[in-house]
Amino acid sequence: MKVGIAIFPSKKLQDLANSYRKRYDPQYALIPPHITLKSAFELNEEELTEVSSELEKISEKFQPFTLNTKKISSFHPVNNVIFLKVEPTEELVGLHQAVNTSFFGGPAEYAFVPHITIGQQLSNSEHADVFGQLQLQKIEHQETIDRFHLLYQLDNEIWTVYETFLLGK
Amino acid sequence: MKVGIAIFPSKKLQDLANSYRKRYDPQYALIPPHITLKSAFELNEEELTEVSSELEKISEKFQPFTLNTKKISSFHPVNNVIFLKVEPTEELVGLHQAVNTSFFGGPAEYAFVPHITIGQQLSNSEHADVFGQLQLQKIEHQETIDRFHLLYQLDNEIWTVYETFLLGK
Repeated sequence: MKVGIAIFPSKKLQDLANSYRKRYDPQYALIPPHITLKSAFELNEEELTEVSSELEKISEKFQPFTLNTKKISSFHPVNNVIFLKVEPTEELVGLHQAVNTSFFGGPAEYAFVPHITIGQQLSNSEHADVFGQLQLQKIEHQETIDRFHLLYQLDNEIWTVYETFLLGK
Repeated sequence: MKVGIAIFPSKKLQDLANSYRKRYDPQYALIPPHITLKSAFELNEEELTEVSSELEKISEKFQPFTLNTKKISSFHPVNNVIFLKVEPTEELVGLHQAVNTSFFGGPAEYAFVPHITIGQQLSNSEHADVFGQLQLQKIEHQETIDRFHLLYQLDNEIWTVYETFLLGK
């Protein structure tokens, strides 16, 4: 099965992200707003249990941290993904590194730019139009992140949470 | 915020339930297939933390149990809900009782009939038609349930998992 590791921020921040996603993100209905810690990879059921206990150990080593988001940014021209930029703190970067080791199938494919996607699969002209409006928006949000989640994808592409891991517990 | 307590069965059983839900359940996109332990109730953020630690205690008192489902059933004529009937085991009934005490806002409104909804909001004639076909289907599925989830509902009515509780840990 296809699994992934992600952080769901507070309801407040998810609702804010969704106010954009419902218009600009075709994955809106498949997964709530999140910060990806590890993109989708394949596991069988036995490996799921092993990965789960490894994540349990990792969660004990990291403390809750502050999520800070101040602006809407874009990966253009690499791709037309628009996102809430999340400031990389030491804990967040460390956590990302810890779940992207060889145990979990190797290092991340890209440098880690923590973010919450709010728009994707936009054409170049849509992207220019939407990002042109959104980049002017003032975002100012801070909250504590104290957990992350292991998810798997159902046949209909919707993600289900398998387990929550509390940081520093 | 609106929260609820539910069990997500295995991917296999969720995929089976979704094969019906995509046609017959308008809530298909809002939450993965589940057994409701406690229907939606209101909490503020502070109470969410309290409820969460209470559920942690409850999860320690119950052991993983076998989920058994053998047939498709219906609540008609009470309502036109079609579901996978889940056999009530001692642990499942005990768990349901434990999360429906005064601490969580009082006892359940209805007697507990454990089930996974696969169709709802059907007209009487749709119900008769669909249930007429489905009740003949042979279902034979058994699995171990070792966890349940506390969820909250976003403004767009999609549910997010707040925390997973492992039974007997």
